[in-house]
Amino acid sequence: METKRNVLEKLDEIAMRVYSDLEKSEIPKITLPTRAKSNIRFDEKLNVWKYGKGVTSRSAKTLDGAYMLLRTMYMAEFIKSMIKMKKSSTLRELYYISEGWDLAKFNSQQESDHLAEDLETITGCLREDFRLRPEEDGARIIGDIVVEEITRSGEKRRIHCQDDVGDAGYSIPYNVEKEKINFKSCDADFVLAIETGGMFDRLVENGFDETHRAILVHLKGQPARSTRRFIKRLNEELHLPVFVFTDCDPWSYRIYASVAYGAIKTAHISEYLATPSAQFLGVAPSDIVNYDLPTDKLTNEDVKALKSELTDPRFNSRFWKDEINLQLKLGKKSEQQALAKYGLDYVTDVYLPEKLVQFGVLKK
Amino acid sequence: METKRNVLEKLDEIAMRVYSDLEKSEIPKITLPTRAKSNIRFDEKLNVWKYGKGVTSRSAKTLDGAYMLLRTMYMAEFIKSMIKMKKSSTLRELYYISEGWDLAKFNSQQESDHLAEDLETITGCLREDFRLRPEEDGARIIGDIVVEEITRSGEKRRIHCQDDVGDAGYSIPYNVEKEKINFKSCDADFVLAIETGGMFDRLVENGFDETHRAILVHLKGQPARSTRRFIKRLNEELHLPVFVFTDCDPWSYRIYASVAYGAIKTAHISEYLATPSAQFLGVAPSDIVNYDLPTDKLTNEDVKALKSELTDPRFNSRFWKDEINLQLKLGKKSEQQALAKYGLDYVTDVYLPEKLVQFGVLKK
Repeated sequence: METKRNVLEKLDEIAMRVYSDLEKSEIPKITLPTRAKSNIRFDEKLNVWKYGKGVTSRSAKTLDGAYMLLRTMYMAEFIKSMIKMKKSSTLRELYYISEGWDLAKFNSQQESDHLAEDLETITGCLREDFRLRPEEDGARIIGDIVVEEITRSGEKRRIHCQDDVGDAGYSIPYNVEKEKINFKSCDADFVLAIETGGMFDRLVENGFDETHRAILVHLKGQPARSTRRFIKRLNEELHLPVFVFTDCDPWSYRIYASVAYGAIKTAHISEYLATPSAQFLGVAPSDIVNYDLPTDKLTNEDVKALKSELTDPRFNSRFWKDEINLQLKLGKKSEQQALAKYGLDYVTDVYLPEKLVQFGVLKK
Repeated sequence: METKRNVLEKLDEIAMRVYSDLEKSEIPKITLPTRAKSNIRFDEKLNVWKYGKGVTSRSAKTLDGAYMLLRTMYMAEFIKSMIKMKKSSTLRELYYISEGWDLAKFNSQQESDHLAEDLETITGCLREDFRLRPEEDGARIIGDIVVEEITRSGEKRRIHCQDDVGDAGYSIPYNVEKEKINFKSCDADFVLAIETGGMFDRLVENGFDETHRAILVHLKGQPARSTRRFIKRLNEELHLPVFVFTDCDPWSYRIYASVAYGAIKTAHISEYLATPSAQFLGVAPSDIVNYDLPTDKLTNEDVKALKSELTDPRFNSRFWKDEINLQLKLGKKSEQQALAKYGLDYVTDVYLPEKLVQFGVLKK
């Protein structure tokens, strides 16, 4: 997270660059990294996947390019005004705000979302610095940790995420940077990030956070940025190991990958979002066999997605190659809640403890 | 909500009925109301839409009917064991639990969901009485109200939904019956139920709950049962008028209808879920014209849905006929967040106050 002054300066720099191009009688342009699977590289230093050297440039030489530069200027101006007024805006609102920008009006929200990401890569700031946020809700957490949130009224509020919240847990806000959220104390051994709400509620009902000293985080499918950032901060600042517990299908492995390695769409800020040490706990294809789980047949889309993962550099490990190949051989997928086949307590009494012993978090 | 003893008795009654059929050498059968748009009638006494006199019967005369009766027995047994063990289960888990029921195993979750609803109509209990719950997350609320929640550990916890929560608000749990949730004090004038998270967060950021003494409830699209029940209780117990604020399209009108009149799927429990006095605040098709809002073209599906609403008894009023016919004429739809065309504060400074004056909640 940048200071307010830095963000304003970096936005001004973009305008300055265009201005100086014009002064030198050059056609203004902006250069950006290419955002595609082919252009992501493993950064050995940061231990996450980042964009490589491929670049795309956006020049006023073409009409489309000129429009994009115009929009960039309007957007920088809008962000500056939000920072000054201490406001924030959803990406959807930003799209509608552009109705007042005359020629610079966006044709679709895809365009405005994309430009917000471009501005991140150009300035090295985060979308949160720009006070832009998505529609998505924050995830919920429950566990023995005290979070200090600075509320809209500027008040510091301490919330114990077991004792001060209802059974639905603490909803994390869309901004989880230090200016908004800090961890005050924590008495837990690890973080368990859970794909589905049904399984999250199961572990809460069974008291797994208390019996196993866990901080439970509901990922809500493909996790929001704020959720990934929150998990990373739990890992880095509190030195808690992170385990990811999902369904057993290719889309769930991508959920794990976005937590551990970074997502392709946000590779320019992987070091803010990814938790490289996060481990995949299950449900793995080998669990289908070992635990004799109820399954569904893989669809054609599933098979395609699994094959695409075999060529995804993020899944280039012995573990993933073996598991994905096994799943293709089985032709089956399964779900977290399929463990209910053995009763409502099986997941907390048997499955998770067995896994945690394997990972060395729990003694036999 | 029924007492535990009543629920157990009512479940036993089903078994008794089958048993007595068998004793009389009759083929066992169960009769249920038909669940379709054609079989919903306005209940003048309760002021909500309920099922009419159409019935369907399920008899062991056919193999399918016999299987369903077998499943009904297993399910009643499972619910009884959950009540005794103070457990609850998601509908998904219930489906997987049936893996252990031999011949009574469900073929799909649709079957098990459907049977859960059938059991409600047969016994007159709620799904919450059966300790079954959906996957969906609870909605979030923010406003000057103190909620007392009885937590999983049995402790009574009072939460002020402005002062004790973060900016994401209080997440309402899946069970909002009196055994779990009670209202302790409230200093607000009305409830505003909001379709999208983006708009909910906008009103929170702008402090609308404080400046206008409102309780803001995030509907999260088509609202969960717990959200509808929560709103109804706010309306009945605290005598707060309820306004529903959605996008301007046929799907959003159905969201309003499910809050105000009851949903077709849950017409057997409309009197628990519907708030007949809830009013539609907007965005209405006439707002598209009056506020000159950005729009999208109606799709073929939109047009079909609008036309179907013209024959839906719940929309049989002058207001809805005029608005729906206007929308069909315009061929346009719009969104809550389209109000951002006029800036981020327009919705709270202009649009909502104008509407609340019309409804007589706010003085000019």
